[in-house]
Amino acid sequence: MRQVAVIGVGMTKFGKFIERSLKDLGREACWSAIKNAGIVPKDIQAGYMANAAGGVITGQTMVLGEVAFREVGVVGVPILNIENACASGSSALMEAWMAISAGFYDIAIVAGVEKLYASDTQKTVEALAGAGDVELEMSVGVNFPAHWALRATKRMEVFGTTREHFARVSVKNHHNGCLNPRSQYQKEFTVEQVLGAKTIASPLTQLECSPIGDGAAAVVLCESKLARKYTTQPILIAGIGMSTGTYSETRDITFNDIEARAARAAYNVSSIGPEDIDFAEVHDCFTIAEFMRVEGMGLCKPGEYDCLLERREVELGGRLPINPSGGLLAKGHPVAATGVAQICELNWQLKGEAGKRQVENARIGLAHCSGGGIAGDGAVSVVSILKKDY
Amino acid sequence: MRQVAVIGVGMTKFGKFIERSLKDLGREACWSAIKNAGIVPKDIQAGYMANAAGGVITGQTMVLGEVAFREVGVVGVPILNIENACASGSSALMEAWMAISAGFYDIAIVAGVEKLYASDTQKTVEALAGAGDVELEMSVGVNFPAHWALRATKRMEVFGTTREHFARVSVKNHHNGCLNPRSQYQKEFTVEQVLGAKTIASPLTQLECSPIGDGAAAVVLCESKLARKYTTQPILIAGIGMSTGTYSETRDITFNDIEARAARAAYNVSSIGPEDIDFAEVHDCFTIAEFMRVEGMGLCKPGEYDCLLERREVELGGRLPINPSGGLLAKGHPVAATGVAQICELNWQLKGEAGKRQVENARIGLAHCSGGGIAGDGAVSVVSILKKDY
Repeated sequence: MRQVAVIGVGMTKFGKFIERSLKDLGREACWSAIKNAGIVPKDIQAGYMANAAGGVITGQTMVLGEVAFREVGVVGVPILNIENACASGSSALMEAWMAISAGFYDIAIVAGVEKLYASDTQKTVEALAGAGDVELEMSVGVNFPAHWALRATKRMEVFGTTREHFARVSVKNHHNGCLNPRSQYQKEFTVEQVLGAKTIASPLTQLECSPIGDGAAAVVLCESKLARKYTTQPILIAGIGMSTGTYSETRDITFNDIEARAARAAYNVSSIGPEDIDFAEVHDCFTIAEFMRVEGMGLCKPGEYDCLLERREVELGGRLPINPSGGLLAKGHPVAATGVAQICELNWQLKGEAGKRQVENARIGLAHCSGGGIAGDGAVSVVSILKKDY
Repeated sequence: MRQVAVIGVGMTKFGKFIERSLKDLGREACWSAIKNAGIVPKDIQAGYMANAAGGVITGQTMVLGEVAFREVGVVGVPILNIENACASGSSALMEAWMAISAGFYDIAIVAGVEKLYASDTQKTVEALAGAGDVELEMSVGVNFPAHWALRATKRMEVFGTTREHFARVSVKNHHNGCLNPRSQYQKEFTVEQVLGAKTIASPLTQLECSPIGDGAAAVVLCESKLARKYTTQPILIAGIGMSTGTYSETRDITFNDIEARAARAAYNVSSIGPEDIDFAEVHDCFTIAEFMRVEGMGLCKPGEYDCLLERREVELGGRLPINPSGGLLAKGHPVAATGVAQICELNWQLKGEAGKRQVENARIGLAHCSGGGIAGDGAVSVVSILKKDY
């Protein structure tokens, strides 16, 4: 297997952009990534487009990749459109990484593009419901906030986690978001403000739930030897692991097997262990989720995340910053763009280009997305590990 | 690169199944393929699900793979959901073939599942419109039948093709469909009946346009050495090529570059030329399309398909049977299922299991799907070549 480097990244600001189309958002992110890579569009041998809700919300389904990549001159090459709920972008990344490492292509572009703000909010709700089993789960009303609220409640009972612990995640990530010019929200909140916000599904308040948003992100991947032609600072994809839910009947809802399996696969292929990770972008769709993701991937022991928060170890300047970008809670969560945007953040951090939110001495970063499938431990989880190669 | 074999196939009948869900259709096709392969679900290391219209029509978007593969016990492994309009199934096949040939997995399942019959026909129209550039093309009303009608008209002018020539394709494919128990239509038509049917977009009549339909197909792929454990009759994937539209401004609308490029890629990787092909399943979404696909892939010269039809060379029993299954016109066209169903047909033909529609001495077969992107020469095209390895 050949090694694969990230040689260019691009990302729109995340936010509410009613007037902008998927094509328009994709164009901005893809051009930025192509320019950042220092290549021309005809150098690109394949395109991987991630989008999750475009069909239901905008009507643009099936061929968004062909439509959007054409806008930046990527035509006549293999193009795939990939969905995997909140892990769509990470799944597209994995496919591109596999294809380049196997020698099918030398250079490929991966983009995640999403519009969740619709003229009719009901459409957004419908689209997001499609991330579960429509026949089974949606019919009984166990939507995402409700399900995570159950997990939060159980965690409080099992580990003694308090509502303040949960709130600290929101405070931390909103603080980081203030340092990220591409973040959807750039406003500090206190623990009291988080706890005092409107309840969405008890114990979770509005400031503990990631918002809907529009946005796009893109990365250019390149075989690592060829990458030296374009950059003296290659960032390598050390490994990517994916897993899907096993939907076991008897299970502990305070721990997600799915993240453990995906992380194990990524650690195995990269020969990098959780102890080597300098910082991580994890899928904090709800505050409780950040606890379970970090623990699930073995970055700390089950139940231990409360202490990490208390000791401020996961803040910027701490031992293991989690979600330096602001995460889904503050940076925003345009579904399929999220996984690709995480790779942009890892790239900027590893290159020392993250400005005020820079993680010091960052050499190895981890990105994690999980998505879909309300029941069981989730539908799909993808863990990517990137490292500095200079 | 390792070689990849098809070791099991399964397919539902194509038709109108209002009461059956995507999950239900997928279950039938996947179980058939798994049983046909002689494996158990836990042997499967990855799943690739193709679906194009599920989001808009059924609400089940984003994670159909996780939802549907779970029904047959395929859980906890990497699962991808892939869209590429009418080439969704072929695109999923390509991704699985690449991953196995590169050594990421030994056994994977590929499924294409689609429901186009909706309680509200407007939803079907909306979903299919998503296969074009929604911002650009759909706003000017150049829908699929209109576009192919323009190509047909131009061909009549350039090559002297007659309406009778077009009608012969429908007659041939409906005849073949009568010999295929899984075909949506099993009724013979005469040239006069085809020409006398309701006009959809002049000169194309209703019997020259593929119908909407529901259905599913699945194939199990396996690394070729391991395949010997499961079968003494391995069918190898000799090669797959994909291309997308270049959208050139000045072009000949009687010839599609996109098929030429995809076929060239498949011929190159397989070291098989058009002269070696014994039969082909091609994307006859409209009668005129069959002419352009066959010529585009170099199976005959531009303009020559009229003669092949006159000489009955492309009928069963002829030199190069085209669409022995009945093709999209008769077998039906549940969008994402089509590309996978073509691989089922190639498998049955190459193994001598095609019953009354058997192509004699079939050793090498070609499957072709193109989809999406009304303007230019199409959005995406995939050509797969399979061969008997015993």
